[in-house]
Amino acid sequence: MHHLPESLNKLINALSRLPGIGGRTAQRLAFHIIKSPPEEAGELAGALTEAVETIRPCSICGNFTDRQVCRICESPRRDASTVCVVENPQDVLAIEQSGRYSGLYHVLMGALSPLDGIGPGDLKIKELTERVKKGGVKEIIIATDPNVEGEATAEYIKEVLENFKVKVTRLAYGIPIGGNLEYADGPTLGRALEGRRSF
Amino acid sequence: MHHLPESLNKLINALSRLPGIGGRTAQRLAFHIIKSPPEEAGELAGALTEAVETIRPCSICGNFTDRQVCRICESPRRDASTVCVVENPQDVLAIEQSGRYSGLYHVLMGALSPLDGIGPGDLKIKELTERVKKGGVKEIIIATDPNVEGEATAEYIKEVLENFKVKVTRLAYGIPIGGNLEYADGPTLGRALEGRRSF
Repeated sequence: MHHLPESLNKLINALSRLPGIGGRTAQRLAFHIIKSPPEEAGELAGALTEAVETIRPCSICGNFTDRQVCRICESPRRDASTVCVVENPQDVLAIEQSGRYSGLYHVLMGALSPLDGIGPGDLKIKELTERVKKGGVKEIIIATDPNVEGEATAEYIKEVLENFKVKVTRLAYGIPIGGNLEYADGPTLGRALEGRRSF
Repeated sequence: MHHLPESLNKLINALSRLPGIGGRTAQRLAFHIIKSPPEEAGELAGALTEAVETIRPCSICGNFTDRQVCRICESPRRDASTVCVVENPQDVLAIEQSGRYSGLYHVLMGALSPLDGIGPGDLKIKELTERVKKGGVKEIIIATDPNVEGEATAEYIKEVLENFKVKVTRLAYGIPIGGNLEYADGPTLGRALEGRRSF
């Protein structure tokens, strides 16, 4: 095996730890970066550091933000009586891009997955019930992924919320089963929101 | 369009400038990085900075190295009378991984491409003739890519080297080992036929 310079190996290893980036792709990216003007690598390194330093969860909904409370939670134009429960910040982005939702969000930061040791205590479910307890929330739209973990999470949240005076709905199955919510296109997400049903 | 935090947008933009990383993938990578322990982003940022700062072209062959002269050019076990001319450092890596070559390299850093404005002056061709002029090189193996640019580059180098007492060869192009003849494309089959040898 050919010995690459140590720092190049390190870069390839760091890149290959990213999801969906295999060894070959990491190699290709690393060589590209080395060949590009150094400013580009500097910008990427700076962006990485800055993002990690400034981004944190919104203290209300858990979505990624660079403030104490995120722009959505803070906006007077959003309908605070509706809360859409999603697994990840990417899901918020996908639903926002559909342009069909004007309520608030609650980001669980994952889904129940006993096989991976992820139980209710690992998700922001307590925070959700706290929000409901505070009052003002009339409807909870559960928008977890349409797969085994997402369904189990939806069922669990539905049961937990049965003790509260809040309508619980689930996104309609306009979303292709077995897929990831974050990859759904805007119109599909819009239809899924419109067709939501009592849960 | 939903407003992501500025630093997250910056990170997505920086990632999407990488080759083969589209907007969606950049988004997915950025969210993954934000969700991961901050040390991981720190390591990647550090690896980027370190690689760009320490890696430079070998003063002899032009391959990426963290020294003045790369490990291959420096090695007493390599056959200094044979020089394999490749387009990019990745090609060196691929040939080294074959374990079948023990000569030296010369990295052109690209291929002739008039449409992209890349002429002989943009490649390390002068450096190649300087190496040959110095003496000691008996054979130049041209291993540019088997496409239009690579072929043009090979032809050009062959002409330039006609003034020197050096044997110029070209990698054999044909059916890939382990492949199926029926799946070989026309141009590959054509080259395999042209290059047929006594058996």
